[in-house]
Amino acid sequence: MSPDTLGRLLADLDDIPTITDARIVRRRSRDFFWYSPILNELLSDKSADILVSPRNEAEIIRIAAACARHRVPLTVRAGGTGNYGQAVPLRGGVLLDITALDRIEWVRPGAIRVAAGAKLNVIDAELAPHGFELRMHPSTKRTATIGGFVAGGSGGIGSVTYGGLREPGNILAARVVTIEEEPRVIELRGDAAQKINRAYGTTGIITALEMPLAPAWTWIDIVVAFDDFAEAAAFGQEAALADGVVKKLISAVAAPLPTYFGALRPHCPDGKSIVMAMVAEPSLESFKALLNGRGSITLETPTDDGPGQVPLYEYSWNHTTLQVLKADRSVTYLQSLYPPDRLLEKVAEIRQLFPDEVLPHLEFIRFGGRVTCSGLPVVRYRDPERLNEIIRMHEARGVSIANPHVFTIEDGSRYKRADADQFGFKREVDPLGLLNPGKMRSFVPDGA
Amino acid sequence: MSPDTLGRLLADLDDIPTITDARIVRRRSRDFFWYSPILNELLSDKSADILVSPRNEAEIIRIAAACARHRVPLTVRAGGTGNYGQAVPLRGGVLLDITALDRIEWVRPGAIRVAAGAKLNVIDAELAPHGFELRMHPSTKRTATIGGFVAGGSGGIGSVTYGGLREPGNILAARVVTIEEEPRVIELRGDAAQKINRAYGTTGIITALEMPLAPAWTWIDIVVAFDDFAEAAAFGQEAALADGVVKKLISAVAAPLPTYFGALRPHCPDGKSIVMAMVAEPSLESFKALLNGRGSITLETPTDDGPGQVPLYEYSWNHTTLQVLKADRSVTYLQSLYPPDRLLEKVAEIRQLFPDEVLPHLEFIRFGGRVTCSGLPVVRYRDPERLNEIIRMHEARGVSIANPHVFTIEDGSRYKRADADQFGFKREVDPLGLLNPGKMRSFVPDGA
Repeated sequence: MSPDTLGRLLADLDDIPTITDARIVRRRSRDFFWYSPILNELLSDKSADILVSPRNEAEIIRIAAACARHRVPLTVRAGGTGNYGQAVPLRGGVLLDITALDRIEWVRPGAIRVAAGAKLNVIDAELAPHGFELRMHPSTKRTATIGGFVAGGSGGIGSVTYGGLREPGNILAARVVTIEEEPRVIELRGDAAQKINRAYGTTGIITALEMPLAPAWTWIDIVVAFDDFAEAAAFGQEAALADGVVKKLISAVAAPLPTYFGALRPHCPDGKSIVMAMVAEPSLESFKALLNGRGSITLETPTDDGPGQVPLYEYSWNHTTLQVLKADRSVTYLQSLYPPDRLLEKVAEIRQLFPDEVLPHLEFIRFGGRVTCSGLPVVRYRDPERLNEIIRMHEARGVSIANPHVFTIEDGSRYKRADADQFGFKREVDPLGLLNPGKMRSFVPDGA
Repeated sequence: MSPDTLGRLLADLDDIPTITDARIVRRRSRDFFWYSPILNELLSDKSADILVSPRNEAEIIRIAAACARHRVPLTVRAGGTGNYGQAVPLRGGVLLDITALDRIEWVRPGAIRVAAGAKLNVIDAELAPHGFELRMHPSTKRTATIGGFVAGGSGGIGSVTYGGLREPGNILAARVVTIEEEPRVIELRGDAAQKINRAYGTTGIITALEMPLAPAWTWIDIVVAFDDFAEAAAFGQEAALADGVVKKLISAVAAPLPTYFGALRPHCPDGKSIVMAMVAEPSLESFKALLNGRGSITLETPTDDGPGQVPLYEYSWNHTTLQVLKADRSVTYLQSLYPPDRLLEKVAEIRQLFPDEVLPHLEFIRFGGRVTCSGLPVVRYRDPERLNEIIRMHEARGVSIANPHVFTIEDGSRYKRADADQFGFKREVDPLGLLNPGKMRSFVPDGA
């Protein structure tokens, strides 16, 4: 951004808090893209020019107007816990920190309306006295925000019961600010709310979300150790299919990945593959009856994600990858979706294809109403060519890949894609193409 | 029973209330088997010799001991709402009315322990202040008991979310009294509790049950009218698969069946097929978004099953058949299970096979963790041969039938069969073969 433009922008922003210190702005312009050696190379030098921290929606409207007026790109950032550079500005401009917008507007039985910058763990803590909680959260619950989750997420802990955010009913409504010289505020309800799901903030600045809630059970963290990964996967599928057993998480992790599991390590016997589960306390006995002695339970404790604790879910989903990366930066990962009808067969087939190179980690989920699993395998990284070959070998066998080594919505999302006209909507809310430019690759702004 | 035996039995029963008036005993020896013209012929002259009404488990133990001592058959009866003669004594003896055993032992978050004779609607009313309800109930909720449901049921309203009683976790524990000269009391927990599931009381006298609970949402009764049954079925499947939409009932009923629907008739336009649904209030908007204008909503009202009301669920499951039978005694019904992977295709195939003779009624359920549907079609009855031919034609096309025109567990249950060694267990709890004799066809008592 030219010093002139910056000056005019700053004048327009007036008393809205800003930071222009390049070191700070650059540090905040990052997320967890470094899980991918490919993204790390592409994104590590990217930075916004200015960090702007609005305190309410009125200020966001002023910022959006100023950016439109001066043709300055705007990238929204909250917790910065994404893995695909969703919050990394490719073309400088404004980095919009929305974390001060954290107010809960209301809580009703089964639903909450909350500002987009509210942290997920704070929301759940506020909901607890009402007997409710969010239906799902990423493994980064303790640092991520609801807006960031919806803008980039897709699903997580809870998706074994409710499916992902893309399933009908999992986002009730969203409120967005357009980026125009006279910004509008648009309420998207029902299906229409999918227009902002996993769009990385390219389809409007999300200021508030209405989310459906789940009953807040007392959850029990459980680790079960198995001699063999195939047994762990088979039990995981059975448990996921058991509609009478109330659960929030079923993950199967192959040996030797659990040996990297820090504080959980004592519960991960050498050479064993594990299933990690979160089961509602009243279903615990039924869960064990289903297990029927097939594995050995090495951990059983109520979920505690308070300060100083490491809850089991921080070893699941993409935290599995993180736990390994802490010790070994030579690995990376993939994201896959298995076909529900030939699940275990395909898991075995992929396992055999890459016995040492792709270490299996499966998250059982519902997808389109069917139990299947999303793989987040840890991959011993050689080079981009081999990584692409591994992707092709999965897809040739009917296992879909949502490539986490690209930063565009089109190339990365694949099966995570929401069923909504996000491109058409972008033209409506961001005609100048200023929102997180470059992420929606196929969008060409008006007059460009 | 010989007058001598009866006299000795009465002496042993002492102060336990009994009725021997043949007219009363015969009337209580019946259930709703008359839905089947075949069972009606086979069972209408069956009766116990004496009705015994214990007030607590200690009295049940005394009755069981007396029956064993005098070799008197014992058939348990509660609400008498079954359809396959489960409570009809084939060989006279004692009819054991357990409805006085209706005490709730305890309620904990997510679980209840209750005496077997408690009525389902009373249980739910007691649970309401705790924010819970039973996970599922038959359409006879307002007259049936929990013991009768578990002994004969299989599933019902709620099974679209939790599956049937046979799914792991849907019965937590059962307490049974054996029928021996010195009866024992046995607690069956977890998998073991399946030994009494749909065994018609042949595997012990159930005195208490521990059942898992569901959160008690505010349910909304909804009727959607469609021009075409295929559309209704397709929407039903979509709604059943939508894990983000919290629901308790999804039924699709083909025209002209809804014209028989008494008080619901004004909401059932001529010539239309309907979907009946119970949706949690916070999911109502999502349900409508999913519907997306495909049918027209003709009813939308909170579920009310209080006195004087007819809740929507009393038009679903086997109440659909009853509503038609009220006007037309020439029909009967079947019970079928569709394969989840070719659901709509098979529904269309069966529809085409019997366009006027078999009128489709589908209940969407989860079965083994997969969404499918159980059919309870209304059948224009000709004769037993044709009925059997219709059954064979279903099965030849991969649609399983649980024949409701037979009274034995083996012949009737089929896919409803619990996964447990009920035969082995019967030898343990009823070595003399006195419990509801004739219902477990393949059981031969010791020394017989």
